[in-house]
Amino acid sequence: MNKKLILKQRPSGMPTADCWELLDEEIPQLTKGEILIETHYVSLDPAMRGWMNDVRSYIEPIAINDVMRAGTIGKVIETNGSSEFKVGDVLTGMGGVQKYVRSTGKGFFKVDTSLAPMIKYISILGMPGMTAYFGILDVGKIKEGDIVLVSGAAGAVGSIVGQIAKIKGCHVVGLAGGAEKCNYVKNELGFDACINYKEGSLYRSVKEFCPKGVDVYFDNVGGEILDVALASLRRHARVVICGAISQYNNSKIKGPDNYLSLLVNRASMEGMVVFDYADRYMEAGMQMGMWMMEGKLKTEEDVYDGIENFFPTFMRLFSGEKRGKLVLKIKMDE
Amino acid sequence: MNKKLILKQRPSGMPTADCWELLDEEIPQLTKGEILIETHYVSLDPAMRGWMNDVRSYIEPIAINDVMRAGTIGKVIETNGSSEFKVGDVLTGMGGVQKYVRSTGKGFFKVDTSLAPMIKYISILGMPGMTAYFGILDVGKIKEGDIVLVSGAAGAVGSIVGQIAKIKGCHVVGLAGGAEKCNYVKNELGFDACINYKEGSLYRSVKEFCPKGVDVYFDNVGGEILDVALASLRRHARVVICGAISQYNNSKIKGPDNYLSLLVNRASMEGMVVFDYADRYMEAGMQMGMWMMEGKLKTEEDVYDGIENFFPTFMRLFSGEKRGKLVLKIKMDE
Repeated sequence: MNKKLILKQRPSGMPTADCWELLDEEIPQLTKGEILIETHYVSLDPAMRGWMNDVRSYIEPIAINDVMRAGTIGKVIETNGSSEFKVGDVLTGMGGVQKYVRSTGKGFFKVDTSLAPMIKYISILGMPGMTAYFGILDVGKIKEGDIVLVSGAAGAVGSIVGQIAKIKGCHVVGLAGGAEKCNYVKNELGFDACINYKEGSLYRSVKEFCPKGVDVYFDNVGGEILDVALASLRRHARVVICGAISQYNNSKIKGPDNYLSLLVNRASMEGMVVFDYADRYMEAGMQMGMWMMEGKLKTEEDVYDGIENFFPTFMRLFSGEKRGKLVLKIKMDE
Repeated sequence: MNKKLILKQRPSGMPTADCWELLDEEIPQLTKGEILIETHYVSLDPAMRGWMNDVRSYIEPIAINDVMRAGTIGKVIETNGSSEFKVGDVLTGMGGVQKYVRSTGKGFFKVDTSLAPMIKYISILGMPGMTAYFGILDVGKIKEGDIVLVSGAAGAVGSIVGQIAKIKGCHVVGLAGGAEKCNYVKNELGFDACINYKEGSLYRSVKEFCPKGVDVYFDNVGGEILDVALASLRRHARVVICGAISQYNNSKIKGPDNYLSLLVNRASMEGMVVFDYADRYMEAGMQMGMWMMEGKLKTEEDVYDGIENFFPTFMRLFSGEKRGKLVLKIKMDE
């Protein structure tokens, strides 16, 4: 029997529990070439909120009654003559929030769990890590000495962005919500500073920690923080638009009123979608793997148990009650 | 005697006549090396509104009681042993709104009026032309076949932007206010189409004339038009932020709520300031001069008479009651 979470209705604003329904279904016979993957972990990402909206975007919206789309990692437990995969292979892909994934294997990639634990392949070696790597290097185009400001600094993407920028010789300032997260970002991840955006004047704090202004701002949040960052740009600065978690649950997105700072500072603001870099994931994975082995790059996963707990766990993305990569553990007996 | 317009107070919102005062003053003796330029024409540009605000920008604000800053062209009528310029030289620079400019010559450039009439050097061969040239080519990075959308298409910058894009083999759609301007843009300047943004649904009009979306949007206006353009971007589109005339008189600038279209479309938005390209003005001038001789590039100036009429003339920038480059004629006896 499979247990799958389907999208029952689209949220307007903050999602509620009744947007989804957990269903039991029998797993049908595999047809020729198909595989059955047992999901071990589901990746919970801010982007998932966007996929629930019925709007034109970089990917089709999740259809009503379809399995809730999500990145997953799991193990092949059955194949019907697949030429590509065999039983025991560990595969990552968009398996969705369900216990078993029946698939042709298309869109799934085999990973080597002798090199890194399974969970790392949906964290630093998965979407968040790839987003951070290509976002800060290819879009942000950081160079030694740059002053880099990163929002969501304790989060899955921001924590990696800042560490890569440190490796590249930048001065790195994070933004995170709360003293504990700021401590983690500064003392454990090694950022030069971390600003608690919930305290005091954000503009003055950025001014204090980036007195010369900001060369690269990596935005995961949008809203007021983006506006303050824009007001703090240096000449020829680059703003990487990776996400806007502060806006995803608003019925109307609020744009950055300080956008004319781009003109004043001859700066640019560029959006990115990680899937565009798929043919270079290997390169990024190898480089980040090396940095991890050298102890230069740390990652943390915040793991919650059980498909039944999808809703409260997912909501931690928006409440800020998590640190590092948010993961839902599906296979409970290991 | 000199007649000069000084900034008396800063406007809040739409400027009023009492922001300026017209003063008579005696012209003091030139000190060694100085020149005296008689102003023939003053260039009236949207950027001037920004210079009146007391905010950090790409240039110092105009100080209270200083001459109103403006681009000018005029003739040297006296020198006190200048090593650079002689009587009769025609110079362009930031002479300000006044009849006579006393100067060391710093920041002024000599132009050749046998190649083009004087007024062209503050129009297509001046700031608006240079802005258009570097904005669409260097920042917009247009290439053959691109779909280019230009706001302020009947204006000093937009009219040139669109014509350059046509020369480069793009499909060019303008945006202008009113049927007459749209006619001009389409039939006289040769844009493929021009949308009257005052009529009907702007989003639907852009959809109609750019059914595949927009590769490059050149923005002179900001506000709702920028938002519609963002909503119409194609993959890897570029948005050039050149100005935001719809916002300059607002006490609070309204940012583009559709900025996440940059993410969805992997697009970028970049600001520009023409002064950065000063060392390449010659290149642009020669190229545009050739296009003008070949009849591929047309420009028009909208000329009003008399320094006394500065205020009502300047306000035409914001009311839209002008076509092409807005110019104030200062020397009346020629």
